[in-house]
Formats: sequence, C-alpha cells, structure tokens
Amino acid sequence: MIEAAVAGASGYIGGELLRLLVGHPGIEVVAAGSTRNAGRRVDTAHPNLRGRTDLVFVDPDRLAGCDVLFLATPHGETMSRMRRYLELAPVVVDLTGDFRLRDPSVFASYYHLEHAAPDLLDTFTTGLPELFRDRLRTADRIAVPGCMATAAILALHPLAAADLVTGEVSIDARTGSSGSGVSAGSANLHAERSGAMRVFAPTRHRHEAEVAQATGLTARMTATGVEAVRGVQVVCRVVLRSGVDERAVRAAYRKVYADEPFVRVVAHKRGGYRLPEPKILAGSNFCDVGFAVEEGSPHAVVVGALDNLVKGGAGGAVQSANLRLGLPEGLGLEFTGLHPC
Amino acid sequence: MIEAAVAGASGYIGGELLRLLVGHPGIEVVAAGSTRNAGRRVDTAHPNLRGRTDLVFVDPDRLAGCDVLFLATPHGETMSRMRRYLELAPVVVDLTGDFRLRDPSVFASYYHLEHAAPDLLDTFTTGLPELFRDRLRTADRIAVPGCMATAAILALHPLAAADLVTGEVSIDARTGSSGSGVSAGSANLHAERSGAMRVFAPTRHRHEAEVAQATGLTARMTATGVEAVRGVQVVCRVVLRSGVDERAVRAAYRKVYADEPFVRVVAHKRGGYRLPEPKILAGSNFCDVGFAVEEGSPHAVVVGALDNLVKGGAGGAVQSANLRLGLPEGLGLEFTGLHPC
Amino acid sequence: MIEAAVAGASGYIGGELLRLLVGHPGIEVVAAGSTRNAGRRVDTAHPNLRGRTDLVFVDPDRLAGCDVLFLATPHGETMSRMRRYLELAPVVVDLTGDFRLRDPSVFASYYHLEHAAPDLLDTFTTGLPELFRDRLRTADRIAVPGCMATAAILALHPLAAADLVTGEVSIDARTGSSGSGVSAGSANLHAERSGAMRVFAPTRHRHEAEVAQATGLTARMTATGVEAVRGVQVVCRVVLRSGVDERAVRAAYRKVYADEPFVRVVAHKRGGYRLPEPKILAGSNFCDVGFAVEEGSPHAVVVGALDNLVKGGAGGAVQSANLRLGLPEGLGLEFTGLHPC
Amino acid sequence: MIEAAVAGASGYIGGELLRLLVGHPGIEVVAAGSTRNAGRRVDTAHPNLRGRTDLVFVDPDRLAGCDVLFLATPHGETMSRMRRYLELAPVVVDLTGDFRLRDPSVFASYYHLEHAAPDLLDTFTTGLPELFRDRLRTADRIAVPGCMATAAILALHPLAAADLVTGEVSIDARTGSSGSGVSAGSANLHAERSGAMRVFAPTRHRHEAEVAQATGLTARMTATGVEAVRGVQVVCRVVLRSGVDERAVRAAYRKVYADEPFVRVVAHKRGGYRLPEPKILAGSNFCDVGFAVEEGSPHAVVVGALDNLVKGGAGGAVQSANLRLGLPEGLGLEFTGLHPC
Repeated sequence: MIEAAVAGASGYIGGELLRLLVGHPGIEVVAAGSTRNAGRRVDTAHPNLRGRTDLVFVDPDRLAGCDVLFLATPHGETMSRMRRYLELAPVVVDLTGDFRLRDPSVFASYYHLEHAAPDLLDTFTTGLPELFRDRLRTADRIAVPGCMATAAILALHPLAAADLVTGEVSIDARTGSSGSGVSAGSANLHAERSGAMRVFAPTRHRHEAEVAQATGLTARMTATGVEAVRGVQVVCRVVLRSGVDERAVRAAYRKVYADEPFVRVVAHKRGGYRLPEPKILAGSNFCDVGFAVEEGSPHAVVVGALDNLVKGGAGGAVQSANLRLGLPEGLGLEFTGLHPC
Repeated sequence: MIEAAVAGASGYIGGELLRLLVGHPGIEVVAAGSTRNAGRRVDTAHPNLRGRTDLVFVDPDRLAGCDVLFLATPHGETMSRMRRYLELAPVVVDLTGDFRLRDPSVFASYYHLEHAAPDLLDTFTTGLPELFRDRLRTADRIAVPGCMATAAILALHPLAAADLVTGEVSIDARTGSSGSGVSAGSANLHAERSGAMRVFAPTRHRHEAEVAQATGLTARMTATGVEAVRGVQVVCRVVLRSGVDERAVRAAYRKVYADEPFVRVVAHKRGGYRLPEPKILAGSNFCDVGFAVEEGSPHAVVVGALDNLVKGGAGGAVQSANLRLGLPEGLGLEFTGLHPC
Repeated sequence: MIEAAVAGASGYIGGELLRLLVGHPGIEVVAAGSTRNAGRRVDTAHPNLRGRTDLVFVDPDRLAGCDVLFLATPHGETMSRMRRYLELAPVVVDLTGDFRLRDPSVFASYYHLEHAAPDLLDTFTTGLPELFRDRLRTADRIAVPGCMATAAILALHPLAAADLVTGEVSIDARTGSSGSGVSAGSANLHAERSGAMRVFAPTRHRHEAEVAQATGLTARMTATGVEAVRGVQVVCRVVLRSGVDERAVRAAYRKVYADEPFVRVVAHKRGGYRLPEPKILAGSNFCDVGFAVEEGSPHAVVVGALDNLVKGGAGGAVQSANLRLGLPEGLGLEFTGLHPC
Repeated sequence: MIEAAVAGASGYIGGELLRLLVGHPGIEVVAAGSTRNAGRRVDTAHPNLRGRTDLVFVDPDRLAGCDVLFLATPHGETMSRMRRYLELAPVVVDLTGDFRLRDPSVFASYYHLEHAAPDLLDTFTTGLPELFRDRLRTADRIAVPGCMATAAILALHPLAAADLVTGEVSIDARTGSSGSGVSAGSANLHAERSGAMRVFAPTRHRHEAEVAQATGLTARMTATGVEAVRGVQVVCRVVLRSGVDERAVRAAYRKVYADEPFVRVVAHKRGGYRLPEPKILAGSNFCDVGFAVEEGSPHAVVVGALDNLVKGGAGGAVQSANLRLGLPEGLGLEFTGLHPC
C-alpha cells in the first residue's frame, strides 16, 4: 500500500484530502500534520470523518518520510519550506499558490512577494491531467492550480487548443465561502457572508495569471464571493475568430473532452441545468464546461463549474497523484454529486 | 448481477435511489419508471447522473419483472397499486407512507384516508436494520419509515429499549426543503422558503405515529421546515426514570450502537459539532444520535440527524435491500459526507 | 390625498408597491387589482402587511378611476390593455417590460413578439429620475426600467455622460430569486435554486437593450441567478479612453451623483463592503455604484447594486410618481436597509 | 430634541440602535461609543448608514452626558460599569443580560458569575411594554429582555395571564446567526454556519430564566442556531387546563393583544404564513404570536417570532424609551417588514 501524508491537514483542503485518502483503496494515510491541532483527533476538526479514521494530528515538524506528501499549507509560507518537504517524500503534491507560476516576476507581480525558491519553479508540473497527463505520469513535483484557474482553464482549453478565439478573454469568477478557509476573519462570518455578492477582486485576481500561463490567452478575471459553501463558477467572454460558429465550437469541446473521465460538456439550449452549475458538483471531482454562442455574432460565453475543494483542490491533487503512482486515474474519486443539494 | 427497478424515479427520492444503485457494485438498475418523464433520459431529471447512466425513463405501466422493485411513488396512491407491484418482483421495497403503519385505524387517523389494502399491512417489515435486522434478511416486503420518524426512532431507541424514560416524548422535528418533493407548490419557491422557519405541522405530524409504533413511547411531534435542502434533525425531550443519570444514558447508547455501521453517537460537552447536525451528513447514510442530560434533573434532550433522502429514504432502502439480498449491508453506501458543506 | 391603484397587485412587485404606498404620507391606495386573488384580503398574499391594511383584492376589470395607476401586470400582456389603463388614470406608471424600449423592432428582437401598441411607445418617459428628472415632472406615462438595466445604467451613466469609455461594455448581471416572480415554476423551487449559480441568459438578456438605449453604449449582458431573495448586482467591464485615470473616473461619479438622494458612490480600496453589495440594500431605494480601475491599464470594472423589487421596481416607480405628482421625491422611501441581513 | 448616546455601538445591536435613532424624528444621536473602532466613521462598521450619518465612534470613556443612554456593551462586563453609566444620563436602557434577572442567585446559576452590582438589580424595569407599559413610563433604568425570552414571553403571556395552562412549558427556540454578534468565532464562519441546525444549548439556556420570571411558568428551553441572519422563533409546548379549548385560547390572545401596536396574532388553519414566521419580520418591530391546539387533547403549541435585533433588541429598547420619554410609543419603528425576503 502506498503511504501518504498531508501537511496542513486541519484546513478545508486538508480535510478533503483526508476524506478522499481515507476512502482510497490504493493509498493509506499515515500522517496528518497540523500546527494548530497537533495532538487532537483528526475528527475533531473534520467531524464528517467520525467513525472513518482514528488518526491524530501531528506537529508538522514531526512528519516522517512517506511515499507521497500532499501540501495544503499556507500560501506564501510553503515556498520557504519546500526543500525540507522534498526530502520527506519522493513525490510531493503542492496545493498552495507558491509553485503554480513558472515565472518569478509574474509571481511577484501577483503575490506582492519575492519568490523564496525561484530555482524550483521550473521543476513543478501543473497538476491538471486534462492538459498534462503524460508529464504527470513521471512528475515528482506537482503544483495543483487554483480553483478558479482550474475551472477557467478547462472551460477555455478547447477553444485555445483549436485556436478559435481572438483577443482577450474576460472572466467573471464566482466562489463559495469555503475558499476563504477555516481561519477566515470576521468578514466571513455567516451574518456578513450569507446571501452576499462580494466583488473581492475587481481586477488582477491571482488566478488570471495561471489561466494565461496554461492557455496562452490574455485573461482578465473579476472574482466575486457568492452564497454557497462549495463551488466555483467561471463565466468567460470570448470573441470567436471569423468563420467559427457554434458547430465548430461544439466540435472542439467534444474532441478534447470526449474521453475525459472528469470533464462533462454541458451546453443545452433548454431544460434545467443547461449550463455548468456547481450546485450539483459538491463532493464530486467533475468539472462541467459549456458554452453559448450569440446568434449572428462572434461573441460567445464559456462557462465552467467545479467544487473548489475537490476538482479545484484535493480531488485534482489525488487524480494527479494517481497518475504518478501508476494507479487508475479515477481511483477514490467516484462520488458523483448530489441533486438536489 | 441482481436486477433492480425504481418506480417513481423522477422525484427526489427516486433520483437518490438511482444515484445509489448506479454506483452499487452488486445491483444493476434495469428500469426507471416515471409517468411524467417517460421517454426522456434519466439525466435530464437528475443532472448529477450525467456521464453515469444512459437510462431512459419508461412508463410505469411498462415496467417489466426484476429481482427487486423500489417504490418512490406518491403517498396515498401506492396502496391501491401494490398488488400489481408485488407481481413484478419477489422483493418490494416501498418508500411511501402507505405501508408503514400496521394498524389501519391509526393510518386513517393520520392520513385522513381509508387504507386501500389493509390486509397487506401486516405483511410488510419496517426497513430499519438497526431494529429489525434479522427479520429484514428474509423480508420480501419492506416499508421504509419516514425521514423524521427514522431520526426520532434511532435517537430514542436506546432509551426505550433499556426502559430508561417515563411519560410522553415531545419531538421537535426540522426538515430541509427537498422533503417537499420535486412537484412542490408555490409555497416552496426559493423566495418563500429561503431562510424560513415554517411550522407546517404544529401537531399530529404523521411520523409521530411511526415513532410510537417502533419505540412503544407516546410521542408528540411538531415539524418545522428550515433552510437546508437536505437534512432532518429531531430534538426530543424525555424524562428519565428515577436514578437514571448521564452515565446510564451514555451506556445505553454505546450498548445499542457500538457495532452499528451507520449510527454514530455524537454527544460531546464542547467543541464544534458536539451534537448531531445534518449539515455534515448530506449524501451519507449515517444517522448521528446524541443526548444531553440536564444537571440535577431528570430532564434530557435527545438529538438525531440524517439526510432525509439517504438514511431517511433511499439509503435506508438500499441498506435494507442489501440485507435481504445477502449482500454486505453497507454496499454502495460508503460516501462519508462533506465538511464544510 | 392623491388616490392610487395597483394592477397586478398580488405579485412580488405589486406587493412592494402596496407596502410603499400603504406607508406613504402623500398617497392613499384605493384599489389593488388581482385576477387570481380577487375577493381575498391583500394580507393573505402579502403577510408583511398584516395590521397595516384591510384592503381586499378586486378583479382588475373592476378597477375604478384614480389619480395614478401603477401596473405590475404580466410582461407581454400589458401592451394590449394599455389603452384601457390610460383611460383609468391621468398618470400611469408601468413596471412591465412592454413600454421600456422606444424602437418596436428592437422590442421584437428581444421579446420575440410584435408590439401590440407601437404608436404608444414614444409617449412613455423612462422612470429613472437620475437621468430624466425634468421630463418626469410632467410625464403622464412612465415606463420603469428593468431591475438589472437600472443598476447597469446608473453604474455606467457617469462614464457615458463624460464620454470616458470606448468600445463595447460587457455586463455580468446577478439576480436573486424574487425576480422570477410569485408564479415561477419548479426550476425555482428552493431545493433547485438554493445556493445556485444559474446562467439563465448567457447572451442577449432583454435588459441589455435598455442599457444601450439609455447610455448610448453597446452592451452585452450575461445574467445569472444566484442565492439571495432580493438583490441585483451588475459588474461591467469597460475600457477607458486614453488618458482617463482613476481620478478622472472618481470625479465623474462625484459630479453626477453628489446630490442624488438615492445613489451612493461606494468605491473604497479596502475595508468591508468596499464595492456595491445588494445584501445591505434589501428594502431600501438606494442604488449603490462603484468602480475599480486596473493599475497601469485602461481596463476598469464598474459595479452597481440595488434591491430589484425597490429601486429596481416599486421604489423607482414611487420615486418617479412623486416627481410627477409634485411631492418630495423621496417621500415614502426613507427606509435605509439593514446590516447585517 | 432629546439627545441619545449608544455605548457598544459597533456591534450588531449597536448598529440597529443607530439605524433606528438616526431615522427617529424625536431623538438625536449625539454619540456612538466603541472601544474597537474609536476614531472611525460609524458607516465603516454599518455600511447601511452611508449617506445617513456622519457620526464618528468615540472611545466609550469619553462619552459625555445625554438624555438617554443605550447600552449594547458586552454581557458580563456591563454590570461593573453600570454605576458610571448611571451618572451619564437620567435614563439608561440596558440591552445586555446583566440586569434582566431580579434574583442574584438565579443570575449566578445561569451566568456562572457572581453579580457585580446585586443591589442595583431591583432598580431596573423589564423593557417589555406589553407587560410593563405603565411602569416604563416612569422607569429611569430599563433592562431589555433577551431576544428568545421576548418571543417566548409574548407568546405565552396570554395563557399565563388567564391561567389557562398547567405544568411546565418546554420551549424550542431557533435563532439566526446575528445573535452571535460581530465578534463571533470560527464556528460562526459562513462555511460552518450556513444551513446548519446547531443545538448550541440543549438545556438551561439563560433566557429560560427570564421567561419564568416574567410569566410565572416553569420553562425549559432548548436553543438551536439555524440559517437566517436575523430572526428568532420559539415553539412552546403547553398543556391546557381541563376545559380550555381553542376558542378560549383564541379569546385570551385577542383580549391581551387586540390593541397592541407591535404584536400580531397569527393563527390560521391554512394558507401561507399561517403561524408566526420570522422571515417576514426582518427590520420590523413586530412580534407575531400564534397557537395550535391539538384536536381532542389538552396539548397545544404556541409560536412566537421576531427580529432578534429589533423587537428582540434595539426596537424593543426604543419602544420602551419612547414610553419613558413621553413620545408616541411607535415613533421611529414604522418599518413593516419585507415579503419576500
């Protein structure tokens, strides 16, 4: 059995990693690191795991070696500890923002921080199997993209790959409250956040840089926090190249995603749930993508949706790890989502 | 492979049956009946099943024979069609209210209807493995209890079984909106139901009769619709017999539920989620039960929580069917619930 | 006392008209028309008005003459009855979509209907005091704009008026569930709509035509239903003309809105609620507008927020009627909104 | 003009006091005290007041004398500062829990604290006009009851006053998240609290002692946090004395509340909103009360609902202060609540 450890295991992403790994038939969790909760049972922080694990959090400095190490540690702090982490396990899957961008100057511009380990940036592979499956099979260092970036990249990828769009892309990203994390401040109290439509990043959200890096498109992202605990949705506006019609768009999506296990093309003209909706994806590893082309115009709207803690976090990480570890890609990721929910 | 069919498959309970059965390694769904949606793909009504099944709804009159038939058909109409259903399959699992009560006069009093097949009432076994496991192993006709009844029965059962309480029990039951079903009226529009605390049954909710039947306790239930799509919680007030203290109560719960796969005792003095909370149970087959004894007093509060569509519906049905079919009791019911959600 | 009647008084907009008019010191409601509820007390449909009015709904065909008639009747049906309505009162305030667009061909293109009274279109004045205050003082026929249109027009107006933007505007509009109305279908059940992010109009939402008409800008609107009962938010992407910086933008907003009683400029760099957020506007007649200019770039994001049933409906109608009737513009519209809510 | 000050003005109750007083035609707010926010504009903490006040928070130690002082300061700390507060104003209205209970031993038993000023307890009058209107007209020291206590007392008062019930009362109280306050901890993050049904006080909630004190009934209260930002609902189970039927119950409610400006009796057999529902009370000063008597049984359920920050807090305080200051009782409290909301 492959042995895995999770650092930063008491946060929301850490909890999802534990949930997926505890139920994973090919991986055993041997350690859950948490500074804040060391010594406490894992199920005190993650009550959904009651009866499923007797693990106790350990101090992160006492994490022992293992086969694969997942990092759900704080953004901005992980880069300076990465060398130590790399000694702990031959395969490291990083879920923070620290190693997602290849160019340290882009990193500095978006994170307002100098990168602490710029020489390592190029050694990471983006943990997005749909774009980098082959490289992931041998990648020892994996950087899982941000939740909104994942949704936007998967939504735009077929158009970018087939070179069907021209000009810049604008992305309106909406996210549920779990994205703010378990240690969020008073602005995330229920009374403040309930029913909110909070434009928290009108311009220059960090994830737009990841979209540009992965798709080659210039992207501008506005991010809004909306009601939902889990769930990310991106609505992207694109201009199609001359001559590209809805049929060509549909063909591009089908071609790219026909055999993808975790991407569904949802682009109906009528009926309920006719475009991607994160509500029915909670807990699942699906990213649904879809589109609508404006009649008689080169304008189109592309939509992506996922669960920010699963396909946009822990699930994407496990899917990438499965590839690297030679396991079936979807192992442990079978849950299909609930309706209604 | 065991072949199953679902009648009433386009409702919310029907959808959950399909979700659980489509992912069940020991059962194959061969037909999904729906009057309203005959001819349409199952995933038009249940978008979470996209990519998981190509089933098409059939007219319920055209359901063919199978090994096990699940009924998620309307309350009050099922009883007059039951004889026909019984011809279709050797094992019938009924999720409606029609065959839950053994006494036709109690049925008439709570449903304001004469029972159409009173002679069949005694031929059904209550689909609650925790109380009736042995009988379910050979039961050809299973009646799954109501969602609030299931929560209340499981919460009260240890006290009733050990004869620790005296007098009547009052039950405050709260339920999410999915309990009203997919064809609910305008009172269940989002604008009316969002954030509501709607006391829809101040007295004489039907499920109180099921509690009395299963536990032998006289129960009074008040039911309130609260925000949540899925989830039922019951808060029961009991008076403990003289000399019964918290230790005795705790011992009673441990004794009854120590080995139950789907009941967790949650009764902590502090910390988050210290009493049962349906929020973390969405999609799971757990029923969490707990209690708090008032210091220096014989009064105690007993709490139960579950997902009304799973343990209080489709999950309980599958668990009971697994027993009858000789399959591992928890097969297909492994999903552990999400936190946060 | 000025006598008012409301046709279509049992819907959500009708209910808000009644709430505002019942509390209005200068206007008395003399009749509330409703086909569906004729003969019933008004407070059976609008329980918040219990103890505030003893009005009973009348059949709309029996509405008698009055000083001002508000129409909250169905879109698409109002135009063919308008001539009759115009006979009932010297001042008619229409809250439907039927007389908002001046050009019948634009109407046909967006509503997929031939207009039934195209000759009347030009006789209506847009009920938006911030743009048309002087004309409203003498307007006998007022067409209140759509909720998302109102938010977008007020958000964009300062930039358009000062000619600070170039090219097209894209608008991402989000709306709460009350916008779907009291007779919405099963897609608006709480279980389906709760926590949703439903892109119900990816392209060509009707309100984009109103934005173009009022601002002169070419606008593309995508509309999404999100959680919230009340509330509309628009996020507009614009490109500033060369040389226009944040200071110029701020000056344009201040100039236009410095003395507006119901528009607040909300554009802070930090702190909570730093851009317009509909959550704190429920029940109030405010439209909050704000902006963020991307550093070192001509791109800017403009945000508007309001309560779709008040400033985006009944409140805007009363504000316009106050002007026409020679009453203080803000009479009856004093409620300031709640925090938290 | 009467001059008022608010201590503890940056919390949720403090914000509601400011909202009501800023719009109050007979009272002028001259100071808003806040330790945390001294020096900042009031509308940074309460964004709904933008454009309505230019007040700046002052250090509470620098509050000057005024005609009436409202205390929305922390529970448990207010009692030791009360003597100083009493020097600042001839009329003090305390919204904390510190002076609600008359008996210091009951206080100690429920608050787990010795009272710091037990000699002052008897000098306070309960700020509940419906029960203590005459005394409030001359009361210089007013203690506003807890939100759940207010709902329960008003719901039970007609039965208690007419001596129609026997034995103990059990109260199931549900509350929205604003009751936890602006400085609530991580358990009140949106991700944790959204859709929750959290039994946070299974037994011995403090407000039960207030109910007993005001009604003379022995009460047991269980308190649950449910989704809603504002709103409290209590469901009380009572046993009617022999011979008391529904007609007698209805007569008792009518008699007591026929002329009350802020209590509505809501007890219908059918239709929407047939029992009290806090959803339509947000922002209003109403307390709705109702009941349902079980057919052929002495058991009845009594329901009360209010906005915890208004009738259960700031609104009740202003109503009481109006009485004491010789102003019309309902001045500044006219807002009627929204539907839908």
